[in-house]
Amino acid sequence: MRVGILGGGQLARMLALAGHPLGIESTVLDPGEGVCAGAVATHLVGGYEDADQLGRLSAAADVVTYEFEQVPETATTELARHNTVHPAPQALATGRDRLNEKRLFQELGIPTARFAAVDSYEALEAAVADIGLPAVLKTRTLGYDGKGQAVLRESGDIEPAWNQIGGVPLILEAVVPFGREVSMVAVRGTDGEKRFYPLVENLHREGILKESRPRFGDPLHGTAVDYAGRLLDRLGYVGTIALEMFQEGDRLLANEMAPRVHNSGHWTIEGAEASQFENHLRAVFGLPLGSTEPVGSCFMFNLVGHLPDPASVLAVPGAHPHYYGKAVRPGRKVGHITLRAETESLLEERLEQMRRVLPAD
Amino acid sequence: MRVGILGGGQLARMLALAGHPLGIESTVLDPGEGVCAGAVATHLVGGYEDADQLGRLSAAADVVTYEFEQVPETATTELARHNTVHPAPQALATGRDRLNEKRLFQELGIPTARFAAVDSYEALEAAVADIGLPAVLKTRTLGYDGKGQAVLRESGDIEPAWNQIGGVPLILEAVVPFGREVSMVAVRGTDGEKRFYPLVENLHREGILKESRPRFGDPLHGTAVDYAGRLLDRLGYVGTIALEMFQEGDRLLANEMAPRVHNSGHWTIEGAEASQFENHLRAVFGLPLGSTEPVGSCFMFNLVGHLPDPASVLAVPGAHPHYYGKAVRPGRKVGHITLRAETESLLEERLEQMRRVLPAD
Repeated sequence: MRVGILGGGQLARMLALAGHPLGIESTVLDPGEGVCAGAVATHLVGGYEDADQLGRLSAAADVVTYEFEQVPETATTELARHNTVHPAPQALATGRDRLNEKRLFQELGIPTARFAAVDSYEALEAAVADIGLPAVLKTRTLGYDGKGQAVLRESGDIEPAWNQIGGVPLILEAVVPFGREVSMVAVRGTDGEKRFYPLVENLHREGILKESRPRFGDPLHGTAVDYAGRLLDRLGYVGTIALEMFQEGDRLLANEMAPRVHNSGHWTIEGAEASQFENHLRAVFGLPLGSTEPVGSCFMFNLVGHLPDPASVLAVPGAHPHYYGKAVRPGRKVGHITLRAETESLLEERLEQMRRVLPAD
Repeated sequence: MRVGILGGGQLARMLALAGHPLGIESTVLDPGEGVCAGAVATHLVGGYEDADQLGRLSAAADVVTYEFEQVPETATTELARHNTVHPAPQALATGRDRLNEKRLFQELGIPTARFAAVDSYEALEAAVADIGLPAVLKTRTLGYDGKGQAVLRESGDIEPAWNQIGGVPLILEAVVPFGREVSMVAVRGTDGEKRFYPLVENLHREGILKESRPRFGDPLHGTAVDYAGRLLDRLGYVGTIALEMFQEGDRLLANEMAPRVHNSGHWTIEGAEASQFENHLRAVFGLPLGSTEPVGSCFMFNLVGHLPDPASVLAVPGAHPHYYGKAVRPGRKVGHITLRAETESLLEERLEQMRRVLPAD
């Protein structure tokens, strides 16, 4: 079995690592030289609109998938002529546009914060009048990890925000006072079977995910399963998806979906019977899905802009570091650490030990 | 961190796969084209006495290790001039010679079956008279998976056995009526710390390992830990080792040691907190050892000479196939499947399911 992956970053790297034991060889297409998936996959160097390299990727793969949602439509359309492409380009198109995404949530009865399309300064003023402040103005496409966003706290912020990111299609979203950020990582197979990992609690700082913790038996797990399930079925989705939500009181408000393996599911490598990476591959190859049952208790730390001393990390029992083989730069995700323990109380002890090793920020 | 590995088969492949998350890049030296570790490591094609390629391996590695014990001494001696080599070539030399190995066991007070050196036909006759029959005649070096061995059941077998493998240094060993074949996989760090996986029960057919099952809480675990510990300390060993033993009544008789990661420890990838591969790498790099505690209950099936249908295997809950990317040939190890469950009784259920998928033999 041969998979082609658009993008050669850490998600592709972890997909390729999950593939080898299953007998799945990976080829990645990525314009960067020496991308981190290249250590475990064949790397074709080229842009996502490079017809020659797309042809090579197509020839090297039975199934094509991707590690990021900003793939140009021309690439997936071209690949879909020759290969099975999962998740379907339609899911990609929806996930690429925050407005379409929110409208889909609405249509499926999945609650969201209030939002409005903003295509002009006048529309922005009208949207603020309607939704109120605080609110966040976002580009409809191409935003990730907090980029392409401006927070509006008072009316004086409207003009600077417009100057900062205006001129492209935007969306204004109400900022809701929320208790938790959570995500549901789920997978759907070619036969429509769906499996759901436990609900995950996430902590972001400056728009970048810092910590994730699966919460087994969370009272909102069922609600999140219901929402993610509706989305998977409507999209006829095949593969792993993540639905990010805010908790407001006892409600979940959908924020965005990621039509791919997701950072908040990295703990599944050690913490679930089959990881999100393995399940994504099982799904796109039409194989039976693996169990999403937890194996002990888990916590994930992202390593952003720094790599701690390996010996100190490995001295903590149950620590499973994952270094991505990337050069360290400020704000760059260069690895993650999953901490696992048989019980929640033992996990708490180990968390304390690990927090002494990791730099505070 | 960069590791060089002599040999590029499935053990090197699984070492390399364990290395990537830890930030350890692997380079393997192996004369075969397209060896299976090549998919996840840099592969230098060359013999183990090829000075140029040994030089390249040395330059590409901080630490050198190996996946098989038949490495020529010239290679390890040359590499040890420039690199840290673990386990030490001395352990390799002992493990390479069945007679020295048995004498070492004896010296350490580790029981063995009766044995005698055989260097001539007359010595063979004398050894048979002393030890009795049945017995097994083995080459002192280069034997593995049942090769270079002849079983002597009656005196008429002596001459044919001599004709078959005589002319090189041999050892005659008593065949003991044993209840179980077991192994102890253990690891020792540069600081002398030792960790032990649970005792494993093994089933061989025609000299090839077919099945392994860790037995948590086995009454002979402590004895096995004691024996393996003596061996590790005497050899000043660094890395993962396996000690294979027979159980005769309530005694363990050491059969042989493997100074490397071992087939009977493959279940540790999913079934222990840190796998034998990860712990070997942690050890040889002088990093803290990982926990050898079990994670649920496990069973391992070797795939020898056949690959079952992937979909049928993956339909069994808790199944973790590991395909080595090798062409299927009769008698060749081409993969293994670890079956994991939270409890022994659930494991039994899954074992029944898996046995229906795997061909009987």
